[in-house]
Amino acid sequence: WKSTAGRAQVIMESFVEFELEGSIASKNTFNPIRDLVDTMKLQPNPDREKIPLSIGDPTVFGNFKTAEAVNEAMIESVKAHSNNGYPHSAGYPAAREAVAEFYTTEKSPLTADDIVLASGCSGAICLVLPALANPGDNILLPKPGFSLYNTVCGSYGIESRFYNLVPEKQWEVDLEHMEACIDEKTKAILVNSPGNPCGCVYSQEHLEAIIAIAKKHKLPIIADEIYADMAFPPYKFVPMADLTDDVPIIVVGGLAKRWLVPGWRLGWVMFHDKKQPQMKKVRAAVVALSQLVLGPCSIVQGALPSILKNTPQSFYDETLSKLADHANHVKTALAAAKGLSVVVPQGAMYVMVRIHADHFPETVNDDKKFAELLFQEESVFVLPGRVFGAEGFFRIVFTAPKDKLEEACNRIISFCDRHSI
Amino acid sequence: WKSTAGRAQVIMESFVEFELEGSIASKNTFNPIRDLVDTMKLQPNPDREKIPLSIGDPTVFGNFKTAEAVNEAMIESVKAHSNNGYPHSAGYPAAREAVAEFYTTEKSPLTADDIVLASGCSGAICLVLPALANPGDNILLPKPGFSLYNTVCGSYGIESRFYNLVPEKQWEVDLEHMEACIDEKTKAILVNSPGNPCGCVYSQEHLEAIIAIAKKHKLPIIADEIYADMAFPPYKFVPMADLTDDVPIIVVGGLAKRWLVPGWRLGWVMFHDKKQPQMKKVRAAVVALSQLVLGPCSIVQGALPSILKNTPQSFYDETLSKLADHANHVKTALAAAKGLSVVVPQGAMYVMVRIHADHFPETVNDDKKFAELLFQEESVFVLPGRVFGAEGFFRIVFTAPKDKLEEACNRIISFCDRHSI
Ligand SMILES: Cc1ncc(COP(=O)(O)O)c(C=O)c1O
Ligand SMILES: Cc1ncc(COP(=O)(O)O)c(C=O)c1O
Repeated sequence: WKSTAGRAQVIMESFVEFELEGSIASKNTFNPIRDLVDTMKLQPNPDREKIPLSIGDPTVFGNFKTAEAVNEAMIESVKAHSNNGYPHSAGYPAAREAVAEFYTTEKSPLTADDIVLASGCSGAICLVLPALANPGDNILLPKPGFSLYNTVCGSYGIESRFYNLVPEKQWEVDLEHMEACIDEKTKAILVNSPGNPCGCVYSQEHLEAIIAIAKKHKLPIIADEIYADMAFPPYKFVPMADLTDDVPIIVVGGLAKRWLVPGWRLGWVMFHDKKQPQMKKVRAAVVALSQLVLGPCSIVQGALPSILKNTPQSFYDETLSKLADHANHVKTALAAAKGLSVVVPQGAMYVMVRIHADHFPETVNDDKKFAELLFQEESVFVLPGRVFGAEGFFRIVFTAPKDKLEEACNRIISFCDRHSI
Repeated sequence: WKSTAGRAQVIMESFVEFELEGSIASKNTFNPIRDLVDTMKLQPNPDREKIPLSIGDPTVFGNFKTAEAVNEAMIESVKAHSNNGYPHSAGYPAAREAVAEFYTTEKSPLTADDIVLASGCSGAICLVLPALANPGDNILLPKPGFSLYNTVCGSYGIESRFYNLVPEKQWEVDLEHMEACIDEKTKAILVNSPGNPCGCVYSQEHLEAIIAIAKKHKLPIIADEIYADMAFPPYKFVPMADLTDDVPIIVVGGLAKRWLVPGWRLGWVMFHDKKQPQMKKVRAAVVALSQLVLGPCSIVQGALPSILKNTPQSFYDETLSKLADHANHVKTALAAAKGLSVVVPQGAMYVMVRIHADHFPETVNDDKKFAELLFQEESVFVLPGRVFGAEGFFRIVFTAPKDKLEEACNRIISFCDRHSI
């Protein structure tokens, strides 16, 4: 083993082939978007600039920027030289306190103890679902819905049970179907409003009807409110926790969307447990799971109090009115597209468009084929609804700059003109 | 439901108690340090300042500071305004490229494709172990060792199989025992050098002997090299990958220790697979798992190329010589402590001290009782070895400021003087 030559010989003699397999858990960690995109025929039209309307990342084009106060908070946090050590796995107390203060309402007060920080809202979801359910249990998830819920369940052996959202009712929950999905293995109901991919914002009445089901079956609600406060007037965001005094509400959220910094990976879990200590064990479970990865970057945690206190209201207002304007443009423009109908976007940064199969020939009459051909001919990339569980629809992320968005809509219109029958 | 009074009544009538349990997965996510510390009698001596020598976080006291170049890299990354979006779940290409360049050696070249970024080295461990093993499989882990390995295995139903380290041989691996632990369900051997909690640094010969076992049994090695290059001369850190051309080596590492920023949560997986594509499926498995949480903070990722290029050698040298000096002080000072013997620290930031049970009465003769009484009488907090699988030892983290460290050693000496028989 000492000389190089001797060593090479040893290697030659005992040549071994290592056959390494990936685990089942990794195969269960299934990303439907990746999977579908990998099998799509994706060659854009070389004569047209590509316009991707596919990724839920508002920063891609550079037109949606975070507030200067947010960047300053980060720089101060670096300069403080005191935010470099391991935070508690649930997060710095001051950061948890800041989240509690920011989201506390008269009806639903929060303290630092009700908050656990996580690596993005995704990280929060990765803590909450496996804290609540065991392998073989099930959690009710919206269909269509954000695919991570199903991915996380799959990776933990939790059954995803999908309740339908109804496009004709602006993607409200089919309440009868939701209730029919519940059995003795159901551990929670996940609700996402404002919603991805639907762009829906549920009314207080609708949320109350969902809460009534949860209450009847003694199930906690996981409210994914990552798009909290991102409702386009006249639609109004109502925090679910404000609508109940007895159903435990576990809210997940984060900086990603409203503060336009998805890459910073700062999210949170908020426990609304007005009849304490109903959720004591679940909190402990979430904290136990948080010890595995130790939470989000300490510099961002250090910046969080200042981010939440010093971001001016004008920043939120401007972002929202720009998003609302984009939403409105897509809705209005695509009204002219043959064979499509737009489900009115009420919030977040998404709009779902229905493809009327009977208006199109074989070659374009489903969401996957439609998205493929649209990309090949018009270089506009939209995600087929099937990655979210909505065949026959496609999703547009409307955060591209206005001129690109207009151009994309025009191309979709001429695509439909060309192909509709 | 509309008026407050009406609503209160509804609640009264249908009062429900939600009985929410935490999941089994969360109970399996067992943190032995937390667990032990929670059951320890922990009241310090009110007359003496507390000196915690328990946490592997060099930033706690403020005497070990990261390089100015590191902070500047972060500030530039914030100011760039271009590092706010979602990175690829494996990390920004430039950041992966920077890690590959930094750790590439003549014998073990790396490219960006060989790197997956993670939320700290912990995050890297959380990707690699479940990518390699299924529930019911086993992974060989060092005993004593860093407790996260066992925690991660437990949380995924992977059996932790412990091979012994031998204190009399400076915590070298008991090679016979290691080999005897292997069976057909073994999926990998994890090696940690420089090591936590042992402060050991394995020689090239010893690492080659471990590699020979892995080769014979066709097992990949997971090399936890988070303390890479933190060996105190004359001991020398040798990257395991440089010692083999055919055994696949999966290295995990990160910024936490050498750059003194554990809270930033930036780690990495490096695939050394000289006989490609032996690890193709394992890489895919790691990337699949990385999609769950989407990797470390984009600002830190954006800063990484500059951190790795611009941190001056003098920073590494000064940190290391300070650590070596502290290690040496503890070793020399505690030589005078009755009933203890120090295992020579060779690297990292830890030293293990053996408690000779026969030198102490019933009340102090095991590591837990020793640590408890030491804290009660001397306000010095050390971790009992049992949390790492080393009963009869305690671990000292020697990153406290020199004067505090000296004071702590003096108190340990007088504690032993008082209690040894
Ligand atoms: C509904 C929903 N929840 C959670 C997330 C994840 O957010 P984060 O980037 O904070 O992980 C997203 C991201 O698109 C989302 O649409
Ligand atoms: C051996 C070992 N591996 C990994 C880690 C985790 O490092 P990180 O803080 O990057 O998650 C530690 C931390 O103490 C350690 O001692």
